[in-house]
Amino acid sequence: MNDTRVAIVAAGTTKFGNRNATFRDLISEAAKATFDSNARVSPKDIKSFILSTVYPERSAFQGHPAPLAAEWCGVRPTDFHVRVENQCGSGTSAIRTAYSIIKSGMTDITMVLGVEKIMVPSHGEIFLNSMAGSDREWESCYGITPPPLFAMVAQAHMQKFNTTEEQIAQVSVKNHNHSLNNPNAHHQKGATLEKVMNSRMISNPIKLYDCSTNTDGAAGAIVCSEERARELSDNPIFIRGTAQINDGYPWANYPKDWSTWPSLEYAAKRAYDMAGISPSDVDVAEIHDCFTISEIVEYEELGFCKKGEGGAFVEDGRATYGGDVVVNPSGGLIACGHPFGATGVRQAYEAYNQLRGEAEDRQVDGAEIFLGHNLSGLGEHHILIYGSH
Amino acid sequence: MNDTRVAIVAAGTTKFGNRNATFRDLISEAAKATFDSNARVSPKDIKSFILSTVYPERSAFQGHPAPLAAEWCGVRPTDFHVRVENQCGSGTSAIRTAYSIIKSGMTDITMVLGVEKIMVPSHGEIFLNSMAGSDREWESCYGITPPPLFAMVAQAHMQKFNTTEEQIAQVSVKNHNHSLNNPNAHHQKGATLEKVMNSRMISNPIKLYDCSTNTDGAAGAIVCSEERARELSDNPIFIRGTAQINDGYPWANYPKDWSTWPSLEYAAKRAYDMAGISPSDVDVAEIHDCFTISEIVEYEELGFCKKGEGGAFVEDGRATYGGDVVVNPSGGLIACGHPFGATGVRQAYEAYNQLRGEAEDRQVDGAEIFLGHNLSGLGEHHILIYGSH
Repeated sequence: MNDTRVAIVAAGTTKFGNRNATFRDLISEAAKATFDSNARVSPKDIKSFILSTVYPERSAFQGHPAPLAAEWCGVRPTDFHVRVENQCGSGTSAIRTAYSIIKSGMTDITMVLGVEKIMVPSHGEIFLNSMAGSDREWESCYGITPPPLFAMVAQAHMQKFNTTEEQIAQVSVKNHNHSLNNPNAHHQKGATLEKVMNSRMISNPIKLYDCSTNTDGAAGAIVCSEERARELSDNPIFIRGTAQINDGYPWANYPKDWSTWPSLEYAAKRAYDMAGISPSDVDVAEIHDCFTISEIVEYEELGFCKKGEGGAFVEDGRATYGGDVVVNPSGGLIACGHPFGATGVRQAYEAYNQLRGEAEDRQVDGAEIFLGHNLSGLGEHHILIYGSH
Repeated sequence: MNDTRVAIVAAGTTKFGNRNATFRDLISEAAKATFDSNARVSPKDIKSFILSTVYPERSAFQGHPAPLAAEWCGVRPTDFHVRVENQCGSGTSAIRTAYSIIKSGMTDITMVLGVEKIMVPSHGEIFLNSMAGSDREWESCYGITPPPLFAMVAQAHMQKFNTTEEQIAQVSVKNHNHSLNNPNAHHQKGATLEKVMNSRMISNPIKLYDCSTNTDGAAGAIVCSEERARELSDNPIFIRGTAQINDGYPWANYPKDWSTWPSLEYAAKRAYDMAGISPSDVDVAEIHDCFTISEIVEYEELGFCKKGEGGAFVEDGRATYGGDVVVNPSGGLIACGHPFGATGVRQAYEAYNQLRGEAEDRQVDGAEIFLGHNLSGLGEHHILIYGSH
């Protein structure tokens, strides 16, 4: 590996929500926010382009979205361009691809744009999209969707570790309350334990407020070599570590005990080692709370607490301001929302602002290390560790 | 850039055609062919996985195909995995992505698998897929499909350079006759000038035999660092140069004169420079004959002949055995067929066999340099140059 470090010098996001905006509108809006974040970077500086999007064919009827998005961002790539997809982990995969093309020397600066238009007029179409994320021939054909799969994770965790429904619900309370400080979040109403516990049952024990939110949104980031970063920014952030694993697909191939995710532990260790840090060095994290129980298992596998203690970790306030690590200050997938292709790039936007001390009411004091995590299945994890230097 | 060279140590392909096989079947079949091509490589050696496919949501209802394909190949990626898409250029983009992750040091060995299931029971679905390759909101909404777009290229080339319909047809004659030596080609019947000229008019002057073929197919390759290649093969091939560009999207944004493609000329020069060769060094090439006229313009922009001389180049036999460079020995997209996501990987398979002297009846004597090219629009080009050493 060569010794070029990889930096981020600009990042922007749209407002997330049930947006009266097309796929194309969302791309434009994220591009403008990205370039507005750093006046020293303009579209003509950008030599490469990576698009992260999952369902453009279904929601926008676009089957060739990378050059379309590049054009809409004002970018004409001469070094590298591609669309990448890894379902819910697409955005993190896009940043990892950006890291690799810069580290390889194929380019020295790229835009990464993540976008998803989910809220289309046909609600059935949204439902079909979530079905398409599992294996059509062996799983979704039987009607399996994400909530019952994660309900089984919750049941296993409750049985093995005596985790309570109230502890699990505290993830939603925290993330909904965090979102009050995020003007771009889909939901900005906060939540109480009572509200989460009394919300409609979806798949026992997962209730409505335990679920992430179908959301329209887009986010962008400019990723470049350290050399270019020094020219374009006085205060870039850096990708310090990254790892990815896929251990078992479809869901039925995953090991029988769903309460622990050893592949995430493995990937986290590799990312920490690459960054030269330990879990206690992480100041702020955006991790994949597709359901509340996911965030609890992730605390454990990422090493923020011991196995089985995730419920107590959030209940005791250790995952919010004043605790061990601020997890999902944006509100996460639950309250900020989860436009699949955009989420990992939106996490990079949060890293960019937190590590530059510019996250306004969400700022974690003195944040120097940020961990971003997506999953696309119990055994499929995507991790990035960002540092302020 | 570090100095690791990137090699290919195994490659395989399915039979192309209107296959009684699912998306999943095609993946399995290509994986088996790939691992069968080198007994020293097994799925457990593979640390990364790149899937190239364009329409899995539409043709197989699969929205998360990368881990599905990895599992079906017997691969559990621990370093990197992603699905990439760039329409007709997806396969070449996948190989370029493999190049970048190896060159970056993120991994030292990856599988690349390209697949497309196109021949689904609904012919309307196939038609919709080809519509989705252009911009839905500004182009395909008006009924624009590839044949009339490339017909305009042909009309422009005929007007500007006095290229004749008969010269253009010679590309089809050559490629259909080449395919007689390729047992995996969709068509293996050959063609005469009379047959091409008398085939049904599609969009003047493009006739049925001027068109590439909707085809099911898949292909795989194992790409690794030179160090790993020396352990796994006595006769690896190497990626010597590569380039990519996107200059203008949608079609209407492309410069007015469609008879020349300056962005291809630019990308070709970069790829040749990176490989340290000139166009006359190319012994064998698989280039993007989505329509016969494309191959003619490509001869010119790739520097195989002068601008405007592409028609005479093929008519005079300079693009076949005994000529300057053997172009599309497999039969190309026209006769071997064009399963979008697989095509670029199938070109890598041809490179692997030609440069190792194992292409049987298609072998180009003494082939040392192979050029692969895909386009995804007049201004969007993807190039790889492979060498036997």
